[in-house]
Amino acid sequence: MSEPLAPGATIGILGGGQLGRMLSVAAARLGYRCYIYEPGAAPAADVAAARTQAPYEDPAALEAFARSVDVVTFEFENVPAEALDRIEAIVPLRPNRKALSVSQDRLTEKEFLSGLGLATAPYANVESLADLEGALKTLGCPSILKTRRLGYDGKGQVRLTDPDQAADAIAATNGAPAVLEGFVSFTSEISVIAARGLSGEISCFDPGENVHEGGILRTTTVPAPIPSRLRTDAVLLAGAILNALDYVGVLGVELFVTPTGLIVNEIAPRVHNSGHWTQNGCAVDQFEQHIRAITGWPLGDGSRHTDVTMENLIGDDMDRVPDLARDPACALHLYGKSETRPGRKMGHANRITPRSA
Amino acid sequence: MSEPLAPGATIGILGGGQLGRMLSVAAARLGYRCYIYEPGAAPAADVAAARTQAPYEDPAALEAFARSVDVVTFEFENVPAEALDRIEAIVPLRPNRKALSVSQDRLTEKEFLSGLGLATAPYANVESLADLEGALKTLGCPSILKTRRLGYDGKGQVRLTDPDQAADAIAATNGAPAVLEGFVSFTSEISVIAARGLSGEISCFDPGENVHEGGILRTTTVPAPIPSRLRTDAVLLAGAILNALDYVGVLGVELFVTPTGLIVNEIAPRVHNSGHWTQNGCAVDQFEQHIRAITGWPLGDGSRHTDVTMENLIGDDMDRVPDLARDPACALHLYGKSETRPGRKMGHANRITPRSA
Repeated sequence: MSEPLAPGATIGILGGGQLGRMLSVAAARLGYRCYIYEPGAAPAADVAAARTQAPYEDPAALEAFARSVDVVTFEFENVPAEALDRIEAIVPLRPNRKALSVSQDRLTEKEFLSGLGLATAPYANVESLADLEGALKTLGCPSILKTRRLGYDGKGQVRLTDPDQAADAIAATNGAPAVLEGFVSFTSEISVIAARGLSGEISCFDPGENVHEGGILRTTTVPAPIPSRLRTDAVLLAGAILNALDYVGVLGVELFVTPTGLIVNEIAPRVHNSGHWTQNGCAVDQFEQHIRAITGWPLGDGSRHTDVTMENLIGDDMDRVPDLARDPACALHLYGKSETRPGRKMGHANRITPRSA
Repeated sequence: MSEPLAPGATIGILGGGQLGRMLSVAAARLGYRCYIYEPGAAPAADVAAARTQAPYEDPAALEAFARSVDVVTFEFENVPAEALDRIEAIVPLRPNRKALSVSQDRLTEKEFLSGLGLATAPYANVESLADLEGALKTLGCPSILKTRRLGYDGKGQVRLTDPDQAADAIAATNGAPAVLEGFVSFTSEISVIAARGLSGEISCFDPGENVHEGGILRTTTVPAPIPSRLRTDAVLLAGAILNALDYVGVLGVELFVTPTGLIVNEIAPRVHNSGHWTQNGCAVDQFEQHIRAITGWPLGDGSRHTDVTMENLIGDDMDRVPDLARDPACALHLYGKSETRPGRKMGHANRITPRSA
């Protein structure tokens, strides 16, 4: 194995939200500096050594950024391809483009996962109203029309309970290329946060059970109450995905638990909200794990020393902070966002309890 | 109780070393921004929103700094009094001047502690060779001559094993005002990291056992293997010190364990190296506890969820980082210092094990 990135080296992060912020703190813990590139407001800049505020369409700013750093990573997957081209011409990008192109497009992602032999929700490509009507005949209702690109926290999704809603659904998604997903009868959703290092080693954190509200993650509880066999399956399929993508970094895999086994809902080529529990449950959390992977360190082994329930603090949940601050078992992580808005992730609370099984 | 400092407010920190760095990260976790004032190199600046590099003797820089922040704290206790005067005229300083003036001077500190009825090592004021010779007759040898001001990591201390060394000891300390400390027969050294909030509430972390090498802290192990009665004593005496100083923030109290009970070695009016274990042993660590105290939040209750041995990584210990990184129970905290020097604290490793008693 080659030497890890030298102490004091600089990591470039595309995106300056809470994920970039927590990545920056983790990088500092390993002796690295971080440089944030973010077109908008950047809570990450408060804990980073440097920051550029410029659009992803500014070649000069992008190239100056790329020349100032030793490796580039990202906190969200919808960075324009052209921006990535410019960066990659100058400095390594980790994870690689393949992971990004797969996860940027729901259809590509489904085809990639199916190609690996992994189960997904039944799906059909939808480029027109006729496509959607045809797909509804095959997949039935309820089903969900999801735009292929730029989906995030339930945006760009329309739920159909009746085939008559097809035209409205196409209108609601502006006729954008989409995928219709058939109904999956699942008992719970879990996710596994997995990492692959520069040398190809793989490490997974324990799967957590996720509860969503209004399309936004509400809580993740670890350990997920699933049979040991499913935990093994989750790790094996995450490993298959990581290897197939020649992936370097942390990847989030959302899975449905069904009576016939696990179904892959989606993958995120980055640290993931459902992995925030690791900050208070593990010696090496998902943020440090990602930094370790992209800088060539050995990975943390993913051991959990404590059980954790992570709760997102969304919008007015911030009013509960004084009470949460008094809870002896509660570790708070606020993102320093200047404005509280409904549906906006403002922070999270990790409630810790002694390790069970 | 009044409202805590508003989210997004800025905390000024005097000193930009590793303690300031870890304070800055903790403040960010509660949604605050940090502004570092440091005359020299500042590893803390890599994780802070703003930084001034100027001497403590620069009134304009100090005042500009003070006007840009909502509260000022410090990571080391030897900030010149005049600098503090300028700052305090503009913005609250926490902890207060009394705590600083007591701990900046070993004689004042001993007199303060004795005045509270707490046991200290026997001591005598030394302003001349004659004083030292007299003190040696009373306290005997071995004993330690310590300059009253600017002691840190064993600097400014001379050990005397024979009264004939008196003249050499005065020469070695440049005749600076000093205190001669008599020998204390102790079985171990422990420290307690205690905090007092703006409203007067007090919280203590579990005492840890400290091992020093060459005058520098090597390891802290929690829980310290001491009887429950001594744990209670440690908490009670820390509380007495905090209240007597009308203290706000985290205070480190170093104690000798002797057959007749606890003796106070010294106090540090700041987060303390022997409290670094809390980063991986508690929901709220000493750095967040300090930020909570000075911003008016409720204090964390100090519960330990995990046993921890903290080991300082000093100088060439950095060569062991690759091995430590592979240890599943080990959490690394590196300080991002650009140069490794013998005796320099470069980072620390917290090795975690399941909670015992």
